[in-house]
Amino acid sequence: MGRYPKPLEELIYLLRQLPGIGKKSATRFALFLVREENGITERLAKALLELKRRIRLCPICLNVTEDIPCHVCSDPSRERGIVCVVETPEDEMAIEDAGIFKGRYHILHGVLSPIDNMGPEDLHIGKLLERIEKENIKELILATNPTPEGEATANYIAELLKGKGIKITRIASGIPMGGDIKYMDPVTLKQSFENRKSAIP
Amino acid sequence: MGRYPKPLEELIYLLRQLPGIGKKSATRFALFLVREENGITERLAKALLELKRRIRLCPICLNVTEDIPCHVCSDPSRERGIVCVVETPEDEMAIEDAGIFKGRYHILHGVLSPIDNMGPEDLHIGKLLERIEKENIKELILATNPTPEGEATANYIAELLKGKGIKITRIASGIPMGGDIKYMDPVTLKQSFENRKSAIP
Repeated sequence: MGRYPKPLEELIYLLRQLPGIGKKSATRFALFLVREENGITERLAKALLELKRRIRLCPICLNVTEDIPCHVCSDPSRERGIVCVVETPEDEMAIEDAGIFKGRYHILHGVLSPIDNMGPEDLHIGKLLERIEKENIKELILATNPTPEGEATANYIAELLKGKGIKITRIASGIPMGGDIKYMDPVTLKQSFENRKSAIP
Repeated sequence: MGRYPKPLEELIYLLRQLPGIGKKSATRFALFLVREENGITERLAKALLELKRRIRLCPICLNVTEDIPCHVCSDPSRERGIVCVVETPEDEMAIEDAGIFKGRYHILHGVLSPIDNMGPEDLHIGKLLERIEKENIKELILATNPTPEGEATANYIAELLKGKGIKITRIASGIPMGGDIKYMDPVTLKQSFENRKSAIP
């Protein structure tokens, strides 16, 4: 197999480290960058260095932040004692955008996944236990995704904290608003029937 | 909509400039880079700057190269007088890897495509005409892809050079080796019938 010039091969190799990017996409990106003349490449190089210099994980909730602690953890109007556990900063942002939660967060940065070599020690769960003691947390909302890994992670945390006198809840699974029963998978349908509520107010 | 800290938003914006990358993928890449601790981010920044410093387009064939001219154009064993016109450096490499062509190349870096605002002036076709005069080219193999845009580009170049006394050929379309007739589209089948050859040696 032929090889591109070395600086191009190095860039292709590094772009392949990005999640979900294979050789074809990495090559397409690299050749785009060779050709572009709008300074995107140089700005990208600068942005990568700025990222490492300025972005940190909040020492409390582990969200990505420039300020320490992050704007949620340092906001005195946020309810203390209730923490929502999510997988990623993207999940945190979706919940924040929905404006439905006024407590604080804990970001796991992943889920339990033996295939990806992700165990409890990779998920900052020790840090979560510390917070529960230190911050006098009364309720934990387990908002990991309703996937096998997300469920396993929620179950693991619930099991770990059983009998510690904390209220532990799991977000509801069911048919999303605008969803269509005929396209729903059996597990979602089962959940929506098991979690049915009285329709009489 | 919530926003990530500024250095993260800047990186997401720049990653979205890569071809085929939307907001979701760009965010996933950026968060991966925040979390990774193997120095990939710093190496990537360095590789981007090296790319712009060391990689050029060959002034003859326009392939990506560190050396000027590129290793194909400067190879005295390559046949002169025959040039294979391709869309991208990836296409050139596939043909090189196949070891089926011993002439030289001309890389268009695209195809005619009104939707993408790509006209003849964006495809270095002027440069191709110059080469034909200067290098005493006898045959041009049009190896753009058998897509509507690739066909239009090949037709455009063929039309432009008609009557100039150069042999102009187009690579054959048909069923690829290992392909299955029942899964082929009608245009490919039509091509494979029209371009049929005697089966008696």
